[in-house]
Amino acid sequence: MEKAVVWFSEGTKEQKALLGGKGANLAEMTNLGLPVPQGFIVPATICLTYLEEQVLPEAIIKQVKAAIEELAVRRNKTFGGLQSPLLVSVRSGAKFSMPGMMDTILNLGLNDETVQGLAQQTGDPVFAYDCYRRLIQMYGDVVKGVAKEHFEAYLTDYKKQQNYASDQMMTGNDWQMICRVFQSIYMEHTQEAFPQDPFQQLLAAITAVFRSWNNPRAKTYRSLHRIPDDLGTAVTIQEMVFGNSGINSGTGVAFTRNPATGEPGLFGEFLVCAQGEDVVAGIRTPQPIQALAQQHPMIYQELKQLAEGLEDHYQDMQDIEFTIDDGQLFVLQTRNGKRTAAAAAQIATDMVAEGRITIRQALDRITPEMIDQLLHPLFAPEALQQAKAFAQGLPASPGAASGHVYFTAEAAEKASRTGEKVLLLRQETSPEDIEGMVVSEAIITARGGMTSHAAVVARGLGVCCVVGCEALSVDVFLKQARCGELLIEEGDVLSVDGSTGKLYQGQLPMTSVQERVLLDQLLTWAQAQADLKVYANAETKNDIEAALAFGAAGIGLARTEHMFFGEARLWKMREVILAETKAERLAALAEIKAYQKADFKEMLQAAQGKKCTIRLLDPPLHEFLPHEHERLEMARRSQKSLAVIERRIDELQEVNPMMGHRGSRLGLSYPEIYEMQTAAICEAAVELRQQGVEVEAAILLPLISLPAELQVLKETLTQVIAQAEATLQQPLRIEIGMMIETPRACLIAGECAEDAAFFSFGTNDLTQMTFGFSRDDAGSFIQAYLQSGILQEDPYQHLDQAGVGTLMRQAIAGVRDRQPEHSIGVCGEVGSDPYSIAFLREIGIDYVSCSPYRIPAAWLAIAQSAPIIEEASVSTR
Amino acid sequence: MEKAVVWFSEGTKEQKALLGGKGANLAEMTNLGLPVPQGFIVPATICLTYLEEQVLPEAIIKQVKAAIEELAVRRNKTFGGLQSPLLVSVRSGAKFSMPGMMDTILNLGLNDETVQGLAQQTGDPVFAYDCYRRLIQMYGDVVKGVAKEHFEAYLTDYKKQQNYASDQMMTGNDWQMICRVFQSIYMEHTQEAFPQDPFQQLLAAITAVFRSWNNPRAKTYRSLHRIPDDLGTAVTIQEMVFGNSGINSGTGVAFTRNPATGEPGLFGEFLVCAQGEDVVAGIRTPQPIQALAQQHPMIYQELKQLAEGLEDHYQDMQDIEFTIDDGQLFVLQTRNGKRTAAAAAQIATDMVAEGRITIRQALDRITPEMIDQLLHPLFAPEALQQAKAFAQGLPASPGAASGHVYFTAEAAEKASRTGEKVLLLRQETSPEDIEGMVVSEAIITARGGMTSHAAVVARGLGVCCVVGCEALSVDVFLKQARCGELLIEEGDVLSVDGSTGKLYQGQLPMTSVQERVLLDQLLTWAQAQADLKVYANAETKNDIEAALAFGAAGIGLARTEHMFFGEARLWKMREVILAETKAERLAALAEIKAYQKADFKEMLQAAQGKKCTIRLLDPPLHEFLPHEHERLEMARRSQKSLAVIERRIDELQEVNPMMGHRGSRLGLSYPEIYEMQTAAICEAAVELRQQGVEVEAAILLPLISLPAELQVLKETLTQVIAQAEATLQQPLRIEIGMMIETPRACLIAGECAEDAAFFSFGTNDLTQMTFGFSRDDAGSFIQAYLQSGILQEDPYQHLDQAGVGTLMRQAIAGVRDRQPEHSIGVCGEVGSDPYSIAFLREIGIDYVSCSPYRIPAAWLAIAQSAPIIEEASVSTR
Repeated sequence: MEKAVVWFSEGTKEQKALLGGKGANLAEMTNLGLPVPQGFIVPATICLTYLEEQVLPEAIIKQVKAAIEELAVRRNKTFGGLQSPLLVSVRSGAKFSMPGMMDTILNLGLNDETVQGLAQQTGDPVFAYDCYRRLIQMYGDVVKGVAKEHFEAYLTDYKKQQNYASDQMMTGNDWQMICRVFQSIYMEHTQEAFPQDPFQQLLAAITAVFRSWNNPRAKTYRSLHRIPDDLGTAVTIQEMVFGNSGINSGTGVAFTRNPATGEPGLFGEFLVCAQGEDVVAGIRTPQPIQALAQQHPMIYQELKQLAEGLEDHYQDMQDIEFTIDDGQLFVLQTRNGKRTAAAAAQIATDMVAEGRITIRQALDRITPEMIDQLLHPLFAPEALQQAKAFAQGLPASPGAASGHVYFTAEAAEKASRTGEKVLLLRQETSPEDIEGMVVSEAIITARGGMTSHAAVVARGLGVCCVVGCEALSVDVFLKQARCGELLIEEGDVLSVDGSTGKLYQGQLPMTSVQERVLLDQLLTWAQAQADLKVYANAETKNDIEAALAFGAAGIGLARTEHMFFGEARLWKMREVILAETKAERLAALAEIKAYQKADFKEMLQAAQGKKCTIRLLDPPLHEFLPHEHERLEMARRSQKSLAVIERRIDELQEVNPMMGHRGSRLGLSYPEIYEMQTAAICEAAVELRQQGVEVEAAILLPLISLPAELQVLKETLTQVIAQAEATLQQPLRIEIGMMIETPRACLIAGECAEDAAFFSFGTNDLTQMTFGFSRDDAGSFIQAYLQSGILQEDPYQHLDQAGVGTLMRQAIAGVRDRQPEHSIGVCGEVGSDPYSIAFLREIGIDYVSCSPYRIPAAWLAIAQSAPIIEEASVSTR
Repeated sequence: MEKAVVWFSEGTKEQKALLGGKGANLAEMTNLGLPVPQGFIVPATICLTYLEEQVLPEAIIKQVKAAIEELAVRRNKTFGGLQSPLLVSVRSGAKFSMPGMMDTILNLGLNDETVQGLAQQTGDPVFAYDCYRRLIQMYGDVVKGVAKEHFEAYLTDYKKQQNYASDQMMTGNDWQMICRVFQSIYMEHTQEAFPQDPFQQLLAAITAVFRSWNNPRAKTYRSLHRIPDDLGTAVTIQEMVFGNSGINSGTGVAFTRNPATGEPGLFGEFLVCAQGEDVVAGIRTPQPIQALAQQHPMIYQELKQLAEGLEDHYQDMQDIEFTIDDGQLFVLQTRNGKRTAAAAAQIATDMVAEGRITIRQALDRITPEMIDQLLHPLFAPEALQQAKAFAQGLPASPGAASGHVYFTAEAAEKASRTGEKVLLLRQETSPEDIEGMVVSEAIITARGGMTSHAAVVARGLGVCCVVGCEALSVDVFLKQARCGELLIEEGDVLSVDGSTGKLYQGQLPMTSVQERVLLDQLLTWAQAQADLKVYANAETKNDIEAALAFGAAGIGLARTEHMFFGEARLWKMREVILAETKAERLAALAEIKAYQKADFKEMLQAAQGKKCTIRLLDPPLHEFLPHEHERLEMARRSQKSLAVIERRIDELQEVNPMMGHRGSRLGLSYPEIYEMQTAAICEAAVELRQQGVEVEAAILLPLISLPAELQVLKETLTQVIAQAEATLQQPLRIEIGMMIETPRACLIAGECAEDAAFFSFGTNDLTQMTFGFSRDDAGSFIQAYLQSGILQEDPYQHLDQAGVGTLMRQAIAGVRDRQPEHSIGVCGEVGSDPYSIAFLREIGIDYVSCSPYRIPAAWLAIAQSAPIIEEASVSTR
């Protein structure tokens, strides 16, 4: 016979699929000997039977009937009787919690008779009839679909007529009247009387829960979250206890440690003579849990011991719901408590110190989002609750900031010099905005995706950033932006939440930046557990120093293009591009070389002897070209005619610059540029060594698609290095590696294994070309795809395993086949994505490289996904 | 002992690797009993020995010495003797003919003594000393590297001093004098005397040939053509015969059939008393070969029989070099004769008729270029020789045309209406130029590559086209173009050669278009042999008719975007795009639907019941947007404000449109568009069937990268089809297939096999994304890559097997794994590329689809690469 009833005492917390999360938890607590109101569960298997047969088989009904009667007997009550009537709650509970499922029904078992019994027993008709009207309302709503509003509207009218300011003023008679009216409202909408048979109530509630498994909202939710449809839901039936049955009663929530700070010791609040709903309703202000120690020291002690026991049992900070029914303590729920990042870090480290959990367990309790929160300032949660965002874009770089808004990099920079806190708001940013971006507290763009220029630079800078905020329309000329009716003018104060993508007017208060001590402890642990290395994408002194402070193993990607965008350099670079003879070009490059050498010295010095991988110039040349209004100036500087300048600019325009004349293609067309960069690296390295500074430089060639591209460039650069070595009479040991950024590079990586000393996947470009999704343009339809479920995940945030991942796997196999020891890394955005790291390990990546402020999360994710290693200190329980 | 000498009588034509092409051929002819001057070959193996040991081993020298003495004995001459001195030619000869290798040395064996013997024997000192001075000069040049100019300069001076107008006026004494001076020139440059020992001459010449195998030019050539370095070259040593030894002597060239027309019968020309060089020098005008019949009927008969024998033997038209030495006929060389396309077709079909060769052999003798020539008019070869091109671009579509140049599509169209022949010259073309392109004799662009818009459309139209002619700078406003100093103005007459990419001023005379009869015969044969099908990329009535005339198995790709570019439709399409509500969009689409339906009816009718695969709208929406000057008009037509129009245009701009919001991505964002197109196809199909017209329509979804894109669109379109079927009460049997155009599509093709009814590779887009080479922009660096050898082949012309091919292989494996019977085709440019077809067959492609004028070449290439099938009619010899 199918088992239709599982008593709490028969289950364990592992049986979530059968008993639902809620039921399994109640079972566990019951077996721990905790004071849990008794009850039983109709398991999820019965749901499937019901859904298939469309009726509840007699055999099952019999078991449920026997169970509810058994419960009444155990509790010395009667179900549907006048004497000590047994009331129960009925709740749904699936393996995964799921919005859209049926809600709770409380007080089931009341009818026109038993309510009188309850009133007599408690001596409190207000309480009894309030319970009854709640049952009618909840049952009508969740079992029969009679909208709550029909009941609420009447109640509101009634109180108005009686001049009652609140429910507190309702008398027993009032509630009794309300019960009658509610029953007629119920009848009006259902064409049947409110059921007086408690067992009929119970069966209807159970089948309503079962049916709700297939309601459209639940189905959509499952489909979106890939939860199987054939799990079904369980139903938990539990005796009611009442925190609102007098001054010896109450209800509350207790945390075993402070969820905001992690401080040990019971933390929470309670309300005397109240039910759970009252706490949520916020009508009365709860008391801190310590007040219970004064008012009911015995109960407080009992609660404290119980809480400690639960924390011991679950080995984590618990969030406990309790009710005191006429001096008797009951636990209704316990779960791992939600906590702030600071608390999480504190609790995890404390619990390791207390010998409760292993270091690995401690790390497993920290989420990447928590790391972000530990790193970045946030808006105060209270302030956020009250504030209303006027727009929302993509959360491109976490943190929070307020400041005065400016619409050009120049204006932002100028304002910042006066000490003003500035925000930069642009249609989209370009490399020339860099100086304005550096001084801004936050960067906002109306266009662009998570890997747009603004997003990438902001993450690099650790600056909060919101991109693709399409509701904004920016007018640089008028120095204003519109967002619907809202007009934003230069200097206006805005607040930007880079973790949610929300924008607010005015200044919001902040929480303070968390102490770095805990973070450093966690980082140290994570690094010890990590089996992949984390390198940094960084090129400025500040970034490199930040990266090393976060434990970067070296610099995996130092881009050189940003270095060309300073005012003086940019004009020189333009001369390089516009040069008509090699002599002209070499002359301009010679001047740039001096800058580059200084840059490389600073970079290599900051890297403190760790490997510093410098990628040669990558972007299309036209990114460096003078704008419309700069052409005359360009003509003047280069002593060329305007016509020549314009012709050359025209020639360099490209239809699809991302797949155009860039990367190593440039290096092959203009060998002088890469030769200059390589020579500058060599000279910088030698000069530093002469000063006693340790240096390990490596060169990375971007956008290789053909083995011959690599071979030709390698030969050229090796000659430059050899020349430098000869001139400087020093071995330089500069390795040359290649980026794998195009699908073809993946397919021919093996062929390149002899020539490239190491490899680095550029997953952004690779994703772009594998899908044919332009990073700059795909924002709009990728969002639509995510919403409609065509895409489950943004491939620029989480590595696309089926597509890009397959190509990467092929590339790695090709390389390992010939050169098993070659180092292979990932320097794209997904390299630091916790959800991608297990896959990257599986396919054989040696290291990831990411922007400095993502390094801690990357270490953590690697540690969390690493195979568990034996530890000296293990859990004591 | 290593065999160092192979007599002509010991070899065969198959031994090219050992004996070199020339030597093997002479051996073959010798064994056929033809009058070949006797000789022997030092085989290529000896070359390798020499190159390794750096000297010629004694054993080898002995064999050569014995052989030359044996030759003298056989010919009753003496080598180095005064009586009947034996003179020989020494020639290099490798398996593959190779520029940069050592040239011929004639008359070897002469010295200060033997020259007197020769003068006596022939009674012609002029001849004898002329031979001697030639030896000194050639030997000096090719063995010792003394530049020819040193000798020539002196000879020129000498003649000037003597007031000789030409060599004919030189006397024996003059040449004797010259020989002395040449010897001193030789000595001056080599610090040694001209060798008087003929055997020393011979050994030096042989080793010089061997060394030339490794000269830089030969090495580069081998590297470029992937010829192995370890083949070596043979040396042919052959007795001299002299066509210049009197009026009973002569030299000439004979073809066994007319190389221009293919007409049977001996064809060629000869010169009395002349050596081969004199024919080439062009000093005297040769006589037609038929004159020989009058002058030397016996020799003519002998030559005729000999020629017939050679054609019989080689089973192909022969190009024969002969010399008559004092009434005796010698054959010096025979080879398959070069021929025009028309001759090739004529000869091949004739030879099948004559039972000499199989149909497959006939097909194998036709090159794809010949097919192009048969299809397209050409400039007369004489005219081309004299004309000087002023610029050269990429030969994007073959054929030749002259006409008046115009710089806008409108101007071209207007001029064409007056009956003028027009050429369209643009910076680059866009879809809006289509009406001007259709009326043009030829299209020229200054920018763009072989797969640019202009190139693709021109090939589709079968119109001659030159693209990427970067020397041109076009000024549409001034209606002129510049090319260096040359100014081209509207209306100027130019001539365009689409087969070479060259541009000429003025009008060049044309050859006539070849008869289609031969082509049709070849096509019929090719189709019978072909094991893959050829479909057409075509959408207009004209194109479809042309395609069917070339034997297309159906329409593999009918693009729908061209249909939106007509004047009235374009404005409507713009309304669709600019619509702010779905209702507005549907209203505009309803009008477009009427056009589309008419288009589809015309298309399906023209396809005559063959499968017609219609690809739904593909390009980015912004391609349809109004230009700067059309925005006001747009505002007026759509009754929107200019600001709204401009905002929407801004929104639709993309940085990398090729990887942007296009293809199925559009179909998902604007489902109304694909629904409209599908409904139009359904209605067109039904109406035609009601008229008794057979129809087989299929739908192709562009740019799929995710299985869900396909699934969602398929579901939507299947509903539209089902609705149409219900309304029209007819089954429509419209299959839905998908394009494989992105690397990711290759990787997930297997997952799509249940949902897509068929697949079509878009190799242009696939190549673009696999390399990251934007088709629009890569022209410049791809050219540079080809020149520097980084790329061996343009991947847009010949499929990139290592990259794109690998992905295609994976895709096909994925599909076949689940749906072995699904049809998989290629509709990119490389589908019709002869060099790619064997690979496409190997990876399992079922069909290729190409523009109509490439269909014949595609059929041919498929037939040529197909496994040979048994034929009823086989070669008779």
